[in-house]
Amino acid sequence: MADNLTSRKQDYSQWYNDLVLKGGLAEHSDVRGCMVIKPYGYALWENMRDVLDKMFKDTGHQNAYFPLFIPKSYLSKEASHVEGFAKECAVVTHYRLKNAPDGSGVIVDPDAKLEEELIVRPTSETIIWSTYKGWVQSYRDLPILVNQWANVVRWEMRTRLFLRTAEFLWQEGHTAHATKEEAIAETVQMLDVYATFVEEYMALPVIKGVKTANERFAGAEDTYCIEALMQDGKALQAGTSHFLGQNFAKAFDVKFADKNNNIEYVWATSWGVSTRLIGALIMAHSDDEGLVMPPRIAPLQVVIVPIYNKDADARQKIDDKANALVKELRAQGIRVKYDNDDTTRPGWKFAEYELRGVPVRIALGARDLENNVAEVARRDEKTKASVSLDGLTAHVDNLLQEIQSNMYNKALAFRNEHITKVDNWDDFVKTLDEKTGFVAAHWDGTAETEDKIKDLTKATIRCIPLNNEQEAGVCVLTGKPSTQHVLFARAY
Amino acid sequence: MADNLTSRKQDYSQWYNDLVLKGGLAEHSDVRGCMVIKPYGYALWENMRDVLDKMFKDTGHQNAYFPLFIPKSYLSKEASHVEGFAKECAVVTHYRLKNAPDGSGVIVDPDAKLEEELIVRPTSETIIWSTYKGWVQSYRDLPILVNQWANVVRWEMRTRLFLRTAEFLWQEGHTAHATKEEAIAETVQMLDVYATFVEEYMALPVIKGVKTANERFAGAEDTYCIEALMQDGKALQAGTSHFLGQNFAKAFDVKFADKNNNIEYVWATSWGVSTRLIGALIMAHSDDEGLVMPPRIAPLQVVIVPIYNKDADARQKIDDKANALVKELRAQGIRVKYDNDDTTRPGWKFAEYELRGVPVRIALGARDLENNVAEVARRDEKTKASVSLDGLTAHVDNLLQEIQSNMYNKALAFRNEHITKVDNWDDFVKTLDEKTGFVAAHWDGTAETEDKIKDLTKATIRCIPLNNEQEAGVCVLTGKPSTQHVLFARAY
Repeated sequence: MADNLTSRKQDYSQWYNDLVLKGGLAEHSDVRGCMVIKPYGYALWENMRDVLDKMFKDTGHQNAYFPLFIPKSYLSKEASHVEGFAKECAVVTHYRLKNAPDGSGVIVDPDAKLEEELIVRPTSETIIWSTYKGWVQSYRDLPILVNQWANVVRWEMRTRLFLRTAEFLWQEGHTAHATKEEAIAETVQMLDVYATFVEEYMALPVIKGVKTANERFAGAEDTYCIEALMQDGKALQAGTSHFLGQNFAKAFDVKFADKNNNIEYVWATSWGVSTRLIGALIMAHSDDEGLVMPPRIAPLQVVIVPIYNKDADARQKIDDKANALVKELRAQGIRVKYDNDDTTRPGWKFAEYELRGVPVRIALGARDLENNVAEVARRDEKTKASVSLDGLTAHVDNLLQEIQSNMYNKALAFRNEHITKVDNWDDFVKTLDEKTGFVAAHWDGTAETEDKIKDLTKATIRCIPLNNEQEAGVCVLTGKPSTQHVLFARAY
Repeated sequence: MADNLTSRKQDYSQWYNDLVLKGGLAEHSDVRGCMVIKPYGYALWENMRDVLDKMFKDTGHQNAYFPLFIPKSYLSKEASHVEGFAKECAVVTHYRLKNAPDGSGVIVDPDAKLEEELIVRPTSETIIWSTYKGWVQSYRDLPILVNQWANVVRWEMRTRLFLRTAEFLWQEGHTAHATKEEAIAETVQMLDVYATFVEEYMALPVIKGVKTANERFAGAEDTYCIEALMQDGKALQAGTSHFLGQNFAKAFDVKFADKNNNIEYVWATSWGVSTRLIGALIMAHSDDEGLVMPPRIAPLQVVIVPIYNKDADARQKIDDKANALVKELRAQGIRVKYDNDDTTRPGWKFAEYELRGVPVRIALGARDLENNVAEVARRDEKTKASVSLDGLTAHVDNLLQEIQSNMYNKALAFRNEHITKVDNWDDFVKTLDEKTGFVAAHWDGTAETEDKIKDLTKATIRCIPLNNEQEAGVCVLTGKPSTQHVLFARAY
């Protein structure tokens, strides 16, 4: 299979597309910009969702579900929010079709025009805060700690599977608090949850930081983010957590009586990660042979492939041993499959599971059985070893953990090598073009300079890292005074 | 709380609404016909979803995700499907808003009109079969056993929370097979899965049957269904499983080469249950004091309420014992909450958890502790007993099982009492009006008679039960010959 894959060197972007398609994760649908998430890709998303969902619940959140549609006027209630989201969106204007008079099919019934158009949610702050108005009267009703798993639609003009699609799946947390401090603490807590998830489960190191005003969520006072680095040296925003201040409470008139019976506006946060994370996972870990899945969220962690010869008796022995192994591994909570499909050869299966990124492959032949061993191959390093069948389950269990750490450490080393401190414009441009990755540079703190740098280099400020070191310097572009290096990069 | 509830006798429909709203399950949103599923209602849905999802996976299915939008022309490709679904649907005609010239907000940008309108999926057969075309070439690609958890939209004019909403959540299985027999076996298998789920988890007995042509899914050759009976004697269709024949394969040109290299159309099924099941759950089990949740899917199975007196020392002892109990019950896998909120009184809590239908309530006071007992109340029978604290966890575990069976048996007895065999028109009408429930009657097998009976009585044929007894008779309306009794009822 790998023969048909484009290599990273040849064409990074095509390589990515090849992996998504040939790895069986997703494909384009007939609806422009919308993807079909195939069973293998969806199983990955389910694993990610289940871990995140547990982390949300462990931090006191509950799930709920709000309408898909948002009345058009709601978007306008928060001034900067409408600027950010109203522009490219799916607009429902009618609620009925009818038969075409000429019998050619169905047409929109002009009599069924909505009084007010509905927008397919691009994000749900407005419909949720209009709901919270009914839920909050006093401090006793706070905090509200609610999360929603949902589909959202943003009418992107240029789409890429997982990374930027018109419809995508995500979760959006929307919380309401009595105090500013509590809301900020929640914002930071959820950023930490995201960072923990991406680092410990996706094996992908992230930098936690705050966005500049330019890159802030439309309607937020502050946007916290985690930024990851892809193998081509471009950054990818892997999750955001927004402190929304009282903006949406004011837009939707959500007030509460505090303990002293003073009436105050409620404080808000929102935070989300999406199927975009799957794009990050692919681009951070995969290689020219295919996907490389981190064991903790891999849909399939171990595959066992029989190497049959023509001896029916030997064949039966292999099947028996493999089935026993499957049972043992499953009992350890390991996701394993025995692929004894007769219609494909072992070599084809090897390539196929390599392409799909299954962390561990066990091959089992008649001679192996005689020697009481199996051939165990690891996907991350593409090495294999002959391992005793005694204690194989424990060996595999350890190996999965080792692969998980190894993948994280490799990504971390790559990321750390690709944070470059520069102190003049020539180095800034040169680093971006040649070395790529994050460029840490002094910046004068103005939106104008940020815009100009973006125009000149396509690099944006990915974030101002949390607890960033403060040191006097001068802006890499304007020479004006600056107090800290911030992280620039070209980004997805 | 119960004081504010409408009783079933007073106004069944209002009683239902009161339970949904005051029980904290859902509420109307600002978007006509769309509901907000509140955390308690969503937790119930999650429990239902998780059980069903496991049953689907245990029968070999995988989840995937297909686009929210369906090109308008796709609906027309299957002739009866478009009749059933194109009429009342949300139509996306534009993909951009812009600022109103008068500064009054945002308006639809007339320049951003879609070439072809998109329909928000009312069901996904068309978009899925257009996708399957790319997945199937040979018999080796079959069967496809895929399920999707998704939101769908049907523009209902009269909506009721959970029972009939414009947007609802559901799952839709879509499978593709090489033979007719295999597809029919799949249809029946999934009907059995639904029946098992509804009976064993929701404690609600169902009748399995086949719909008449009138009541068939638009595009199906046969619709299998499970029908449940509500406390007001009306039936509710709790799930459907469709044998689609080759209709969608023909509409989307999905063919495969069989083992002999003959090119054939693929055979299809689809099957679904939705958040409507929550409506059935409420109407089948609840009483005038509130909801009654079947233990196996109850969001909360046990609540412990402390009965404090003013002695701080006694208070501490109650807290300690309650926390130890929580730990023990959780270790048994029981969903339990200790409600020691100081701002509400025990009596208020009792009513609140009664309203919410929590199966078991444990009250714990100082005197109870002295006597080494707790007061254990069961929601279904509204009885309470003093139970020794020794072995309380085992007692509760048994009690939950007993409540689950008791709820099922009560519903079963009610349902069985409400299946009435009638052999003439007067009895038919009288039974429908006075006794209510299912009426088993001979029917001449024609759509005309079925329609006429519906016009006269509002009763429809809910199903022809599977393995229905064959016996000669005459149609209750027309007197024409008939071979079997079929089940009529007024229905939700």
